[in-house]
Amino acid sequence: MPVNYHPLTAAAAHVIQGVRMSAVQAHVRKPNRYDMLLVEFAPGTQVGGVFTQSRFAAAPVQACREHLARSSEMRALVINTGIANAATGELGLANARATCDAVAGALSLKGAEVLPFSTGVILEHLPMDRITAGVNTAANSLKSGELADWARAAQTIMTTDTIYKLASEQIVLGGKVVSITGMSKGAGMIQPNMATMLGYVFTDAAVSGALMGSIAKRVADVSFNRVTVDGDTSTNDSFIIAATGKAGNSVVSALDSDDARTLVAALERVALTLAQAIVRDGEGATKFITIEVTGGRDFAECDKIARAVAHSPLIKTAFFASDPNLGRILAAIGYGAPADLDPAKVTVHLSGVLVAEKGGRASSYKEELGAAAMKEADISVAINLGRGTAAQTIYTCDFSYDYVKINADYRS
Amino acid sequence: MPVNYHPLTAAAAHVIQGVRMSAVQAHVRKPNRYDMLLVEFAPGTQVGGVFTQSRFAAAPVQACREHLARSSEMRALVINTGIANAATGELGLANARATCDAVAGALSLKGAEVLPFSTGVILEHLPMDRITAGVNTAANSLKSGELADWARAAQTIMTTDTIYKLASEQIVLGGKVVSITGMSKGAGMIQPNMATMLGYVFTDAAVSGALMGSIAKRVADVSFNRVTVDGDTSTNDSFIIAATGKAGNSVVSALDSDDARTLVAALERVALTLAQAIVRDGEGATKFITIEVTGGRDFAECDKIARAVAHSPLIKTAFFASDPNLGRILAAIGYGAPADLDPAKVTVHLSGVLVAEKGGRASSYKEELGAAAMKEADISVAINLGRGTAAQTIYTCDFSYDYVKINADYRS
Repeated sequence: MPVNYHPLTAAAAHVIQGVRMSAVQAHVRKPNRYDMLLVEFAPGTQVGGVFTQSRFAAAPVQACREHLARSSEMRALVINTGIANAATGELGLANARATCDAVAGALSLKGAEVLPFSTGVILEHLPMDRITAGVNTAANSLKSGELADWARAAQTIMTTDTIYKLASEQIVLGGKVVSITGMSKGAGMIQPNMATMLGYVFTDAAVSGALMGSIAKRVADVSFNRVTVDGDTSTNDSFIIAATGKAGNSVVSALDSDDARTLVAALERVALTLAQAIVRDGEGATKFITIEVTGGRDFAECDKIARAVAHSPLIKTAFFASDPNLGRILAAIGYGAPADLDPAKVTVHLSGVLVAEKGGRASSYKEELGAAAMKEADISVAINLGRGTAAQTIYTCDFSYDYVKINADYRS
Repeated sequence: MPVNYHPLTAAAAHVIQGVRMSAVQAHVRKPNRYDMLLVEFAPGTQVGGVFTQSRFAAAPVQACREHLARSSEMRALVINTGIANAATGELGLANARATCDAVAGALSLKGAEVLPFSTGVILEHLPMDRITAGVNTAANSLKSGELADWARAAQTIMTTDTIYKLASEQIVLGGKVVSITGMSKGAGMIQPNMATMLGYVFTDAAVSGALMGSIAKRVADVSFNRVTVDGDTSTNDSFIIAATGKAGNSVVSALDSDDARTLVAALERVALTLAQAIVRDGEGATKFITIEVTGGRDFAECDKIARAVAHSPLIKTAFFASDPNLGRILAAIGYGAPADLDPAKVTVHLSGVLVAEKGGRASSYKEELGAAAMKEADISVAINLGRGTAAQTIYTCDFSYDYVKINADYRS
């Protein structure tokens, strides 16, 4: 059960003009489940993306990078679950390209106008006959404007997720209503380094293609790049923003414009909701934990300390036990911190309760205050380093028996 | 139950001339258990040590560093379990010094000739009345030559350990028999960065005090600094080598001498046995895993990849399930590797079976070969990066239900 996460009903997901989609049962790895999503964009749609930094980047990630390096104008996405097409060598890359060619053939596009995505087991090859058949079926049933399609789409890209992830909002840009709707998937092997497992945000705003890469990076940095379930960065992490330009707003063409700020802020909200949903649905999660490090000299030291706390199995198991184990938190700060950190200047708050100061337990701290904070499903750890103005926030979950159960059973 | 580890019987632990010890029940945190060990050295004993790199280094670690910075000649160690005296601020440091002073008073030494060590819960203060009483009792019952004392000593320093850790051997230096006996403790919060939780190696060799720091660092680097249970570096990690000089050998005074090489190699063997024992007794461990990375351009990249594999919760749970989940191993190599790694040149062997090559699964690999390897309690993962001659080896264990159980229950 996800921690304090209730997905949008499909009716609350705004239609994006210029986007059509179709989900099908392609039997990629298992029968009788929706496992392929085809998304078609109107001509002129501008796309920006960020991808895993893994050196074993999956074949579809390699293909996406190639295609986006040639042009930001894209006409379709094709996403399959079941098989990740990762660590599959030359044949894997050929299969990713062949998947794009199948979409291109069915929709009269060029292969390079299609972005492919895969998620599922690593080291397996795609069944290209069923992939091609799935693409052809999907191409014949593309729909726009059906609200239920968003829920179906978000369900189709799930793997170990227990719930689909959708977020949506509308803003006004230059007098025109602009809609933004996004979806994500992921529950384990989650410490995105540039992007999450899979995240997609669609908008009908008109945006210059030249800005899309920067916008995707900026949005990912404050959303998907701030979540971690288990510290494992996937081979397939991908995050895409697509702007169809159908809302009728003046094209956003400079990042320092008011319209750009309004749009990017909205994209960040949607992406953060989707990113947090992944943590709330983290494998075996029973707690959602926000780790905020402030007062640092630079971003890097804040980020390192926040991740040290977020990845400590000892802290994660203590959260599972609702144990306000301050010692483990201080220990993780201690090994994550730079050599010249002064422990006497560090303060730690647990859901608003001052728990540590002056190198030890706060004199005002009482165990029952910490215990009360730990009973909640949403918990914050706020660490002030007392040496500067830099900050970072990381979202994570606890480590439970079910995490072990899920990952000792599931072949990912 | 530790994985393939059977401690020495006390009868196999060699007596170290110039070392006397006494274990007592000081009731540091709980009654009716041996929780304090006092070790007295003969005059002239030379000591080298390495300590946690944590910025929340415990008070006794701070005191040890101060004392060793003044002189390598030490006369006593005092070790307590139950309370770590970490994150205890100024009072904690005063208590660590007072503990040394109590030992100095009881044995007619100076406080600066005593090294204090604590392990147990963080954030609690030492009960100084009971510490002082324990020291006085221990000082009245120091013994040497009783073989059973080694087992009692090693038991006394245990916390969540399920078994005591002792290693011992004899070598000949310049015609003289030299004995080496060591002990260690630790099962969780284990990724030593300079040393393990607590490790002690005693020898009656005569060694120049000027070499002891370098020798301790060198020995730690190939033993305690190669093990990890959960990636959590403790606030109290300490590793000490003490040389009493009573064996009658010519003083070892240069690191590049034959005697130094013989002695250091023996110290490394003893320390590696003690370090591996910590992993074999890792919290909830059911597998002992050796991760060997070779063919790297430099040590740092080999170390980073080995630790990425060793710390991946997905890999650790797969080992627990005896699942030859190659995808998770390749994924961890992928995110641990430098940006210019060529995946096509990487090979991976699982306990001698070639499982991955050319960016994907090895053509010769059969699932049943991997499954057979994973059934064993001792497993090796050998990764060749195919780009140089550097190497690193890391020892770790799996992640089981019992890891969660132990750490969701124990207040450390």
